[in-house]
Amino acid sequence: MRNLKFTIEYNGAKFFGWQKQNGKRTVQGELERCFYELTKERVSFEGSGRTDKGVHAFGQVASVVCENKIPLKNIKTALNNLLPSDVRIVKVENAEESFHARFSSKRKTYIYIVQVGGSRSALECDTIGFFPYDVDLQKMKEAGEMLVGKHNFKAFCSADTSVKNFEREIYSFNISKRGRKIKFEICGNGFLYNMVRIIVGTLLDIGRGKLDKNCIRDAFLTEKRSILGKTMEPNGLYLKKVEY
Amino acid sequence: MRNLKFTIEYNGAKFFGWQKQNGKRTVQGELERCFYELTKERVSFEGSGRTDKGVHAFGQVASVVCENKIPLKNIKTALNNLLPSDVRIVKVENAEESFHARFSSKRKTYIYIVQVGGSRSALECDTIGFFPYDVDLQKMKEAGEMLVGKHNFKAFCSADTSVKNFEREIYSFNISKRGRKIKFEICGNGFLYNMVRIIVGTLLDIGRGKLDKNCIRDAFLTEKRSILGKTMEPNGLYLKKVEY
Repeated sequence: MRNLKFTIEYNGAKFFGWQKQNGKRTVQGELERCFYELTKERVSFEGSGRTDKGVHAFGQVASVVCENKIPLKNIKTALNNLLPSDVRIVKVENAEESFHARFSSKRKTYIYIVQVGGSRSALECDTIGFFPYDVDLQKMKEAGEMLVGKHNFKAFCSADTSVKNFEREIYSFNISKRGRKIKFEICGNGFLYNMVRIIVGTLLDIGRGKLDKNCIRDAFLTEKRSILGKTMEPNGLYLKKVEY
Repeated sequence: MRNLKFTIEYNGAKFFGWQKQNGKRTVQGELERCFYELTKERVSFEGSGRTDKGVHAFGQVASVVCENKIPLKNIKTALNNLLPSDVRIVKVENAEESFHARFSSKRKTYIYIVQVGGSRSALECDTIGFFPYDVDLQKMKEAGEMLVGKHNFKAFCSADTSVKNFEREIYSFNISKRGRKIKFEICGNGFLYNMVRIIVGTLLDIGRGKLDKNCIRDAFLTEKRSILGKTMEPNGLYLKKVEY
């Protein structure tokens, strides 16, 4: 028995998300299909978390318990030859027996890229979100700072979740702008369902002047989803890295 | 009656090419469907040329003969609201009665972007071609110059074509490199089926040292497809502009 740690990059545009689903093209499904083709072993790629339809990853991590003795380097090369070009194995490493991509994770970093104002480019429609209004970056930065720390993020979570504990800690939150493109980079100990997309939608509405930054403090207290901004579309979201 | 000239941008990743086909998602099909939704007129978007599955455009042009009296600006805005985000109307103009996007075109410019060597990025798999070898840029530039001018490009054309005249004139051909990415920009009076993709595949094989640049001269004379490089994948190809 061996426990392997995979680091995986994918373009979410043509996937129905990470998680295996019957009859649908998913990242986990493609990985397990190609792993079987290579090794004849039916294994489970246990991801650090699910990503939704349309969400991308530079550094998704999955753990795989398996029996084969194929050298690590060969696994990477052979799998990349079998996989479709929108998913790539970046790294394969040996992991401790106790390692689990989801349960062992300590920090995750997400990026969200959005174009504000102007005309939307058809060519970037799968890889960059769009917000039709100009925004005040300084207001957004001030609001972003309010997110850092340990908070009750229940209001920042889509309703369809089975989670019981809504406390999460945000370690850092950075916003940068280049032309009409804004990049949000957020690092925390974990994220609720749609949390990053709701944070970005809320900050953009604050930047636009539609919401006041104090809605964030109010949301921590009242747990009301309705006082925050909309859930941004998935295509601007990237899982950058998972740390253990 | 009015004759409209549309300039259109699209990301080809999720389209089965430009041309309308029953039961398949195509750019022409989406445009005509949305135009009907807006005007209740069944019209034909006559493109400057078809683009294949996976090929993109910054500046495809289509002419449309129609009857409605909607102001140009409103047509653009309303269509963009109806169209999916991977196709955008960049401009709508009034055209002369005699204008036809295909038959009136004088010059077309294509771009091909490819990564040479290194690991392929999953995130760019739909928008950039890939060539697994390092190449000598100088050799490729010398070979590229041999393409400029009027030549018999029959060897640079995929077999499934009904075209009878294979003479085309290339006005300019530029190659530039930035990191591992090479950009080919080619302007000519017209292009045969797969011609740009065969040119790029051939130049990359010349740059790699697998073919000699004189294969280009030989191909003009012998019309043999087999002495040239492979047809590059469609996803690195962009129709940049059509001039009239």
